[in-house]
Amino acid sequence: MEKIVIKISGSLLYPPDKKYYEKTREVIGKIINKGYRIGIVVGGGPLARSYINSLRELNIQESILDILGIESARLNALSLSSALQPYSIPKVPKDLTEAIEIFSNNLIPILGGLQPGHSTNAVSMVLAESLNANVVINMLNNIDGIYDKNPNDPRSKKLDKITYKEMEELIKNMNQIAGGYELLDHVAFELIKRSKIKVIFINGKDPENLLKVINGEKIGTELIPD
Amino acid sequence: MEKIVIKISGSLLYPPDKKYYEKTREVIGKIINKGYRIGIVVGGGPLARSYINSLRELNIQESILDILGIESARLNALSLSSALQPYSIPKVPKDLTEAIEIFSNNLIPILGGLQPGHSTNAVSMVLAESLNANVVINMLNNIDGIYDKNPNDPRSKKLDKITYKEMEELIKNMNQIAGGYELLDHVAFELIKRSKIKVIFINGKDPENLLKVINGEKIGTELIPD
Amino acid sequence: MEKIVIKISGSLLYPPDKKYYEKTREVIGKIINKGYRIGIVVGGGPLARSYINSLRELNIQESILDILGIESARLNALSLSSALQPYSIPKVPKDLTEAIEIFSNNLIPILGGLQPGHSTNAVSMVLAESLNANVVINMLNNIDGIYDKNPNDPRSKKLDKITYKEMEELIKNMNQIAGGYELLDHVAFELIKRSKIKVIFINGKDPENLLKVINGEKIGTELIPD
Amino acid sequence: MEKIVIKISGSLLYPPDKKYYEKTREVIGKIINKGYRIGIVVGGGPLARSYINSLRELNIQESILDILGIESARLNALSLSSALQPYSIPKVPKDLTEAIEIFSNNLIPILGGLQPGHSTNAVSMVLAESLNANVVINMLNNIDGIYDKNPNDPRSKKLDKITYKEMEELIKNMNQIAGGYELLDHVAFELIKRSKIKVIFINGKDPENLLKVINGEKIGTELIPD
Amino acid sequence: MEKIVIKISGSLLYPPDKKYYEKTREVIGKIINKGYRIGIVVGGGPLARSYINSLRELNIQESILDILGIESARLNALSLSSALQPYSIPKVPKDLTEAIEIFSNNLIPILGGLQPGHSTNAVSMVLAESLNANVVINMLNNIDGIYDKNPNDPRSKKLDKITYKEMEELIKNMNQIAGGYELLDHVAFELIKRSKIKVIFINGKDPENLLKVINGEKIGTELIPD
Amino acid sequence: MEKIVIKISGSLLYPPDKKYYEKTREVIGKIINKGYRIGIVVGGGPLARSYINSLRELNIQESILDILGIESARLNALSLSSALQPYSIPKVPKDLTEAIEIFSNNLIPILGGLQPGHSTNAVSMVLAESLNANVVINMLNNIDGIYDKNPNDPRSKKLDKITYKEMEELIKNMNQIAGGYELLDHVAFELIKRSKIKVIFINGKDPENLLKVINGEKIGTELIPD
Repeated sequence: MEKIVIKISGSLLYPPDKKYYEKTREVIGKIINKGYRIGIVVGGGPLARSYINSLRELNIQESILDILGIESARLNALSLSSALQPYSIPKVPKDLTEAIEIFSNNLIPILGGLQPGHSTNAVSMVLAESLNANVVINMLNNIDGIYDKNPNDPRSKKLDKITYKEMEELIKNMNQIAGGYELLDHVAFELIKRSKIKVIFINGKDPENLLKVINGEKIGTELIPD
Repeated sequence: MEKIVIKISGSLLYPPDKKYYEKTREVIGKIINKGYRIGIVVGGGPLARSYINSLRELNIQESILDILGIESARLNALSLSSALQPYSIPKVPKDLTEAIEIFSNNLIPILGGLQPGHSTNAVSMVLAESLNANVVINMLNNIDGIYDKNPNDPRSKKLDKITYKEMEELIKNMNQIAGGYELLDHVAFELIKRSKIKVIFINGKDPENLLKVINGEKIGTELIPD
Repeated sequence: MEKIVIKISGSLLYPPDKKYYEKTREVIGKIINKGYRIGIVVGGGPLARSYINSLRELNIQESILDILGIESARLNALSLSSALQPYSIPKVPKDLTEAIEIFSNNLIPILGGLQPGHSTNAVSMVLAESLNANVVINMLNNIDGIYDKNPNDPRSKKLDKITYKEMEELIKNMNQIAGGYELLDHVAFELIKRSKIKVIFINGKDPENLLKVINGEKIGTELIPD
Repeated sequence: MEKIVIKISGSLLYPPDKKYYEKTREVIGKIINKGYRIGIVVGGGPLARSYINSLRELNIQESILDILGIESARLNALSLSSALQPYSIPKVPKDLTEAIEIFSNNLIPILGGLQPGHSTNAVSMVLAESLNANVVINMLNNIDGIYDKNPNDPRSKKLDKITYKEMEELIKNMNQIAGGYELLDHVAFELIKRSKIKVIFINGKDPENLLKVINGEKIGTELIPD
Repeated sequence: MEKIVIKISGSLLYPPDKKYYEKTREVIGKIINKGYRIGIVVGGGPLARSYINSLRELNIQESILDILGIESARLNALSLSSALQPYSIPKVPKDLTEAIEIFSNNLIPILGGLQPGHSTNAVSMVLAESLNANVVINMLNNIDGIYDKNPNDPRSKKLDKITYKEMEELIKNMNQIAGGYELLDHVAFELIKRSKIKVIFINGKDPENLLKVINGEKIGTELIPD
Repeated sequence: MEKIVIKISGSLLYPPDKKYYEKTREVIGKIINKGYRIGIVVGGGPLARSYINSLRELNIQESILDILGIESARLNALSLSSALQPYSIPKVPKDLTEAIEIFSNNLIPILGGLQPGHSTNAVSMVLAESLNANVVINMLNNIDGIYDKNPNDPRSKKLDKITYKEMEELIKNMNQIAGGYELLDHVAFELIKRSKIKVIFINGKDPENLLKVINGEKIGTELIPD
């Protein structure tokens, strides 16, 4: 039985869109029925950013801003875990042990953030390690994979595959400010390198894309070792 | 030393407005320096409503929607408690005992919701009881007190005082659906009646109003026993 | 598979009577074997009242008295959950999420109170919501249902059905003092109205009555929408 | 500043007697004002025994019966900690670390039991160790100290002092069944021997006796090393 | 289905030996496959002693030293529970209720210590009670059972059986200092006497011995009632 | 009042050396008396490595190995916090909020690790942020600062200052395997860059070096922005 970790961009979950939640529940149900076991990590997205940006102007400590981001992601996770019943229960694990416990009861653990200094991308990697998952599917917000340039650049084009090294170049200039994690931050990337888990970036706007990946269709961008 | 519980409408805290947080911190600092001791309860406001409304359409259990409302209020509480440092610490009490503990360390406990079926107005009353507070100041969103009719009715006028009985009439038709608590729900009202704590409703849009009330100015609406 | 929430009066559990516990275990076993899934909420009863009444005379805060009532109910819940092994485990959920988690492991969650301002009757309603239960069976202490007058009045008679409106009239004069909840307090009643869950009041003195209700016998009083 | 641990028999606290709580608060206040720092441990007493005796007949596991005893003692502790405000807060520490934390905030930690197999007498010893207390004052229920024979024997007489060895003889035949701990069980005694903390047994029925001991009056029985 | 509690000496688990962990996992797997259900308690061993001995010289409180011992045992327990996946999960229960919960999910709960004043031997007894286990198998470090004299004495010989009374004589002179528990301390012994659970001491150095005992081979020493 | 975070290498704390603990307590006492406020983070050191290395050979998940490292560091933290009483209490914060709470009570919070993927160096940075500390003093094990080459190389020499960029070069080839963090891992380094907190590396073998740094002596290596 294959195990999958799904990372969902916070932008896809807040403001909450009834149809998106409904569609996601339907797709998750199909994947479960195919015999897969799933863990989910969701981001804080615009909810996190609205708190963080306002409070940063008040000179609140960066690590406290991180905590606001974590709790925002957890609220999205609670919302999603409510919607995905009975595949999940409305409870957000606060650490990996709780996640493993829920998973061992054949339920989907749905996590937000864990601790300051860690993006939810990084969380998806440690969750994948903990559950012995074979792959992390990263559902991006309204973009269909990783681009060779700034995706707003008309000359940019989507990559089918990208190596660790190439990826590293892309994320080089990203900064570690709370709420500013994008694509893959340094921590997440270090974890990918240590675990060698397969990561596939897809457009999360349509949950059906999850099924496509699982059925072996070549969509999105696959991150591969050098 | 007088003890005060302040209830802040969630609409005032999300989306977060840097200036509002800043002003609130300044006013709270002044009140503390006058020798008052403070407990705060914040609502879930539009954040809570956005989750609740979407998920209700998916037929999620009402009590789980309540929990989403509680966690939304707690996120607002975390945000405010971060901003009110060093008068508070970035920690949201999950029950009254934790609130009492923080209060006994001379810090401001800042709570969101507590349990399904309870509005944050009700929480402000049990917090007031627990801290032996003399008054609850209820900061409304952009309205300066309680009106004798629907405030949108041009013939309505703000009341300076309102008795329990009159209040009871006003709230009679309000329903108990999660996120639908307004002014004062039944539970909160029952708690007011048992505790006989003074409640003053003011326009929370300008935090200075807090100082005015404390200085004895007659603004807003005072709820009084029959 | 039908889901049932059972509310047991605290008076039936303390002082503990070995035979009552034994009989209850036997009946619960039969219900489980018929394929039903169960959640239980127990009251604080005389144990709660003895603490509350003494400490109220010392002017302890009402919400702290509520907490004493909650912990008394939890002690009854622990006692019952010990006795109902292996259908339950000796652990009392502190919130609905824990209750859902135990339930999802095919065990009976047995709750006492949750938070100040909430009767255990109110808890039974939010538990029913959370578990998607179809009915709450309320086991009264030594009275076989709801009466049209004070049951001590010889002219009073037991009602087979009672509408929300009629019920509301009956409970109108009950007060919200800690430990003073009877039949159905305001909060519980508001929750019934929002959830429209069927509630049946029976004489809990004989646990066999539970089986009778489940087998469709018309005993006790059924609370019905207007 | 001298540190004292007070052990109070559960029989003195349940059924709760308003006057006893009131008197105890008064005496504790006086001791605090003399500059002493205090930790308290209370027993489960008749409350614990009522649950344990009934459930033992149902063949519930002994260690679960212990847990019922612990939670009963904690309910007494919660009740007492509510009554002793503001010297304490209504929170019962679940382990020594929490007790130390409350104590370091200049509040009285009030504990019930800790773990199966441990009497509350044993808890009073580990608490005394943890707080570096100089003495444990053990308030017995309606007996003024330790007797050389069964106190019901008219020839018995109260001892002013008793050595470890003599004490050991006295407790030899006591058994370890849950709720059956009396005077000093084996575990508590082992802990006394390792810590060499002074233990004084007094009649707890009159809280004034606490003050007498602290003022150096020779009442009760002192347990002394061989 | 028979239930077994296994107590493993801390000396066998730290410093960690990859082969020992591997062999233990293999043997546990075989026992599970035979249909047994298992709970495990591990000691603190040399890890606990190194902390305790150093800090005792600094006059740290004995009960805090106990806590260091407990946490050392829990670290061994975490290590073992990681290695015994998927029969266990990497989570160490902090109380019996958590242990029962894990066990009821068909996983092996693996505990370290519980509370000051309690050896891990005592913990193995209360765990056995809680799980209704029929036997405790005590895996000693590199000695094949209980000897009639100091095992270093060349005239000593291993006993096949030992009665409670004989055992009591043997442990008489052992002291209760933190980290100094050996074979069976007083608390553990009291618990054995109350529960009458069968205890078998074997050489834990070779995990295969576990299988031998379960298959009915007469190895080690069996502790029997008088 | 200046605030300092001290990071202590796990190698300095385990195996525990009574004299080192004693000396550290003495030095910390002096620093406190000078009016500084302190937070401490300790590493897992050889204790962590012994578990991690053995269990990695059994193919245990990397993130679970991280958790073993975290718990090892917490055991060192518990040990140190016991020894540093009364400046600290024997409790190890599990998240930043708990650390802030202890700190706000004028006690030293002493943390081990927080979450998988995070070294204790990274923890020291988020703690410094949370406490608004001005500097992190990093006590290395038996080396007096950062060297321009492998310190075993006889041509290497200690640097008095090192810029972020130079540091980044030095750590480039370090890998992220659990327990393999040295000097400064990538995560810690990202956090330093975002917070711009001053970091000074000193030889931790002699706790007196702490006092020297605080007194303004130029020892060790200071990490400075480019």
